Amino acid sequence: MMIVMKEGASADQVSSVVSRVESVGARAHISEGEIHTVIGAIGDREQVANLELEGAPGVDHVVPISRPYKLASSEFRRNERTVIDVDGRKIGGNHFAVIAGPCTVESRDVMLDAAGVVKEAGAQLLRGGAYKPRTSPYSFQGLGEEGLRLLAEAKEATGMPIVTELMDVRDMDAVLEVADVIQVGARNMQNYTLLTEIGRSGRPVLIKRGLSATLDELLMAAEYVLKEGNTDVMLCERGIRTFETGYRFTLDLMAVPVLKELTHLPVFVDPSHASGRRDLVPQLSLAAAAVGADGIIVEVHPDPDTAICDGPQQLHAELFGDYMRQLERVAEIAGKELAREQV
Amino acid sequence: MMIVMKEGASADQVSSVVSRVESVGARAHISEGEIHTVIGAIGDREQVANLELEGAPGVDHVVPISRPYKLASSEFRRNERTVIDVDGRKIGGNHFAVIAGPCTVESRDVMLDAAGVVKEAGAQLLRGGAYKPRTSPYSFQGLGEEGLRLLAEAKEATGMPIVTELMDVRDMDAVLEVADVIQVGARNMQNYTLLTEIGRSGRPVLIKRGLSATLDELLMAAEYVLKEGNTDVMLCERGIRTFETGYRFTLDLMAVPVLKELTHLPVFVDPSHASGRRDLVPQLSLAAAAVGADGIIVEVHPDPDTAICDGPQQLHAELFGDYMRQLERVAEIAGKELAREQV
Amino acid sequence: MMIVMKEGASADQVSSVVSRVESVGARAHISEGEIHTVIGAIGDREQVANLELEGAPGVDHVVPISRPYKLASSEFRRNERTVIDVDGRKIGGNHFAVIAGPCTVESRDVMLDAAGVVKEAGAQLLRGGAYKPRTSPYSFQGLGEEGLRLLAEAKEATGMPIVTELMDVRDMDAVLEVADVIQVGARNMQNYTLLTEIGRSGRPVLIKRGLSATLDELLMAAEYVLKEGNTDVMLCERGIRTFETGYRFTLDLMAVPVLKELTHLPVFVDPSHASGRRDLVPQLSLAAAAVGADGIIVEVHPDPDTAICDGPQQLHAELFGDYMRQLERVAEIAGKELAREQV
Amino acid sequence: MMIVMKEGASADQVSSVVSRVESVGARAHISEGEIHTVIGAIGDREQVANLELEGAPGVDHVVPISRPYKLASSEFRRNERTVIDVDGRKIGGNHFAVIAGPCTVESRDVMLDAAGVVKEAGAQLLRGGAYKPRTSPYSFQGLGEEGLRLLAEAKEATGMPIVTELMDVRDMDAVLEVADVIQVGARNMQNYTLLTEIGRSGRPVLIKRGLSATLDELLMAAEYVLKEGNTDVMLCERGIRTFETGYRFTLDLMAVPVLKELTHLPVFVDPSHASGRRDLVPQLSLAAAAVGADGIIVEVHPDPDTAICDGPQQLHAELFGDYMRQLERVAEIAGKELAREQV
Repeated sequence: MMIVMKEGASADQVSSVVSRVESVGARAHISEGEIHTVIGAIGDREQVANLELEGAPGVDHVVPISRPYKLASSEFRRNERTVIDVDGRKIGGNHFAVIAGPCTVESRDVMLDAAGVVKEAGAQLLRGGAYKPRTSPYSFQGLGEEGLRLLAEAKEATGMPIVTELMDVRDMDAVLEVADVIQVGARNMQNYTLLTEIGRSGRPVLIKRGLSATLDELLMAAEYVLKEGNTDVMLCERGIRTFETGYRFTLDLMAVPVLKELTHLPVFVDPSHASGRRDLVPQLSLAAAAVGADGIIVEVHPDPDTAICDGPQQLHAELFGDYMRQLERVAEIAGKELAREQV
Repeated sequence: MMIVMKEGASADQVSSVVSRVESVGARAHISEGEIHTVIGAIGDREQVANLELEGAPGVDHVVPISRPYKLASSEFRRNERTVIDVDGRKIGGNHFAVIAGPCTVESRDVMLDAAGVVKEAGAQLLRGGAYKPRTSPYSFQGLGEEGLRLLAEAKEATGMPIVTELMDVRDMDAVLEVADVIQVGARNMQNYTLLTEIGRSGRPVLIKRGLSATLDELLMAAEYVLKEGNTDVMLCERGIRTFETGYRFTLDLMAVPVLKELTHLPVFVDPSHASGRRDLVPQLSLAAAAVGADGIIVEVHPDPDTAICDGPQQLHAELFGDYMRQLERVAEIAGKELAREQV
Repeated sequence: MMIVMKEGASADQVSSVVSRVESVGARAHISEGEIHTVIGAIGDREQVANLELEGAPGVDHVVPISRPYKLASSEFRRNERTVIDVDGRKIGGNHFAVIAGPCTVESRDVMLDAAGVVKEAGAQLLRGGAYKPRTSPYSFQGLGEEGLRLLAEAKEATGMPIVTELMDVRDMDAVLEVADVIQVGARNMQNYTLLTEIGRSGRPVLIKRGLSATLDELLMAAEYVLKEGNTDVMLCERGIRTFETGYRFTLDLMAVPVLKELTHLPVFVDPSHASGRRDLVPQLSLAAAAVGADGIIVEVHPDPDTAICDGPQQLHAELFGDYMRQLERVAEIAGKELAREQV
Repeated sequence: MMIVMKEGASADQVSSVVSRVESVGARAHISEGEIHTVIGAIGDREQVANLELEGAPGVDHVVPISRPYKLASSEFRRNERTVIDVDGRKIGGNHFAVIAGPCTVESRDVMLDAAGVVKEAGAQLLRGGAYKPRTSPYSFQGLGEEGLRLLAEAKEATGMPIVTELMDVRDMDAVLEVADVIQVGARNMQNYTLLTEIGRSGRPVLIKRGLSATLDELLMAAEYVLKEGNTDVMLCERGIRTFETGYRFTLDLMAVPVLKELTHLPVFVDPSHASGRRDLVPQLSLAAAAVGADGIIVEVHPDPDTAICDGPQQLHAELFGDYMRQLERVAEIAGKELAREQV
């Protein structure tokens, strides 16, 4: 951490900062510039950060030097990438994974149809929401436990691992019964009690980036899980909020290579929620593969026009095979292999 | 809801949309413009929204006409403002309320000192966090139940009602023991299970706006509480995320008069978290009063430099009396009365 | 345009709006909803917009139905795409074009070296800045007319068409001497006098999207050029400003397919300025091709470490050939053909 | 400037950076942390910045320590505030100034009526646009030179100094004939040739902050003027672009006290353009005064409903006297004196 003193800060102010830095066992290293004196605090980042020197007399501003996360950082694994094994499916490294399925578990027929289609087209994991976070309390909130039962049935029928969202720690046990990967939604990215409990469960987790979360914050959310000893964490870019009103969110594909530089964890992209429009999903998916994503999580429905929720963004199941073939070609150029599910 | 058809949409596409609108019991009203045909769907907003016509063939885009919230809207109370009574303190209407206290409950001495100071200066409610949402899992997370006990003691000593944050539904009972107002933090603004449970508790709640939440989303969060029959909801602007890196968040004071037009609920401003710097807090507080806020929630600490967390943003207790007097003068110009707590 | 009246708007207020709509020769079409009366104004968009009914008594808000641009809209060309011919190079449609060269024209040697490299690797157009908009008045502002002379020499040597920026209308004649395509920088996207003069010049133009410009505003900038009878307009996404501080700008690749739906004009992507880091440029370029861009504008330098400006974002010339080959493969999957320059 | 090396950067990489720093005459100061080596570069900021070390081998990132502007900085004037004299009206310091008038100069009658009203109510300067930057090429672009003549007439009639916008350097001479203060619009904040020419003219200038300009960029725009020897520069916050769609722009009042800390230049607020709605203007104006602004620039019109442009945001002239009285009271609490114009 670097503490930049104000122009004209007094010697007393400088030595007061030095004392406080040393009081937590860190070393202080003074560098006098032409305008500003800069004090480098060398030691435990968290301890120095907790001093909160931003407001101290004579301090202009404080610049962090090392990153706030440890277990999530690339350095922690010495630049080796995490490869997660979900019931035999490899995620991360040079693997490219597709998680597909309907937005919501809405009925037995739809769930089983969709599961059959995505399996046949070569998706590795099956998604479907039993608990749905909705902006409006008057919207359909998911089938809940009944939805979990239908997911279990689809898993039984296809052998595909299940990805489903957990919103409330009180539903943890029920979700653990069926989920091979627990999804944390964007609105819960900073629900720290939820993250901690998932960390303790040891189950693989896919954390979606919050609508205006920085990459550091996303990695700190991962850190909450990793800290509990759960190393199977996947990250997911799903669109951020900007001033542009021409689309629902702005898919931030630059986040993918930058995250892959910062962390060893696999990085997914969700083109369905980012755009909210199925016609944009194929191109955004190809772009995600081209930019180096480790996988895609995408919504597919046998008959999107009748879907209970988010119909407009779900791909038509009948076109999903072609979609997968295109994706495979681009992923290959980006150095990735799409391990097709065997039918 | 208005469904705008694409230029050149066919008669079949128009009648298909009309049929779907009518299928949920709404009326369709066709208006043919020079370029676009527009179909007005008149009936239950939620039902029509659930049709998700955005992706239907021939549809260009869909424009909502009425607002998504009902109970929170000004029209619902026929433009009469909600005045909440918290243990005799009036909040909303022509009252101006100050909620003050340390960021975190950190020790018995600090809590009681701060409580004494803010009471003497005329604040109406006492704040203090026992559970702290922290970006880093390595930061101090609050004293938890011990913190709640200290809040109860401060309440006993001063007679002031307590405002404190709830993060986890599992802590609800413990928080209800001491909180006169439950605070929902910005990161939990869309934690719908938390909002629903608070709605059921019937306890007054102060909901902070998420870092990138729209006003509609904030009002939908309020709607989750109101829908459960709890009418004592306060909203709080606490800074939004923008591109500007010169300060922590950008305090959006324009939200205050616009919220007061949209809803009957009281609107607070939190200048401490918005800026993260105590030197900006007085001016931002005056501006909040000038723009018509119903109150301020502000951090005050007997010795901010030794505070366990957020020291740089907490006001020095010894300056708090002057601060309150200035605030009172501006609130009065804005047509508000600051009901000082009697010592 | 739809004028949504407030709940409880009086009959007089409705008829006053109707009169004003009719006063500019438009028809008014009244639709009474359960809560709001909506008045459709059918006629010349600009005329109705100029009424500025947003503030009229009883009006809640105004919703535009048709888009504000005409000549730039897809409908104007009946969904046929514009293909621009720049000295034999085709831009738009199923063509994929690469504009490459150094950020700044800094010396004769660098310019001629870079030109040779990009030509050999198959780029179609050569870029280089003689006038540089710089945030700081103390930074290098470009070689000016001397830079234009060096561009002319590079054009002579390679036969490649030149793309260069114009910042000041007073330099128009000098720039027209050498530029085959005039570039308008992001900071000048709404410099309307500049756009109008370029429109009058008839020279092809590439307009970069402003840092926080909406797609509608970018298309209105194009409209300023098109309105003067100049139909050779290319658009360019170069990163927008968001809250994320992990990179310079956020490249908004979703803008590419959406722009291609809204307009017939070719859409480029500038990965160099968006990221400011050469290590991100190859992946972002592939993603741009995958998402359907009509071309890339990219910075290449024989020895970036010694470049006068923006060195860190310029590709090493020796790696440019491989870069082009990868790009070609992805463009092909996206249905585009990269017409390589013949050496 | 601090150059933070990557974890594991080699000794060679460190010494290569040191050499480059020393090559421009700066001193390098090495500080070895637990994870990162940090090199402080002490010397001319611009020279070191021009090295663009961000991309150099082994460099993680570069942190500027001193600010990029010099003449605009508070330190340059040793924390003494600039007070500008415009034909006897004092701007800055403990003075509070109101610039008022119609958005556009649209006719002789409107201009003279408005001028009379704002003078009588005590505004110090008169505003009115002869050249109007409009998003659409089909909108009214201002009366141009005829507008300047009407401004001259209003100045003659009232004795008030004139504030009017310059968009095109070719109109400089005509504008200098009448403008006592030249206004630079938000879209031209980074039109560097315009800023430089205004700097050379020596005429006072009011620079509006761009829609997504950082405070540093705004101050760098001021620096372009100051560098030419023109010290009479005023800054103006007029709303920034955020994700919120409930209002036109988000007025960033936090910018006011922060700018006043960073610079000695006077800071204005424009509530009319920020909100686009006259009903919000009075409250936003009071908040601007409360937060410490040096003045307000506000639109007033004798009959806003018939205004040619921006009618909905212009205050009714008949209410302007009350508005001024309220503003005066709040400015006084903020330590400012409103020097009323004598009628």
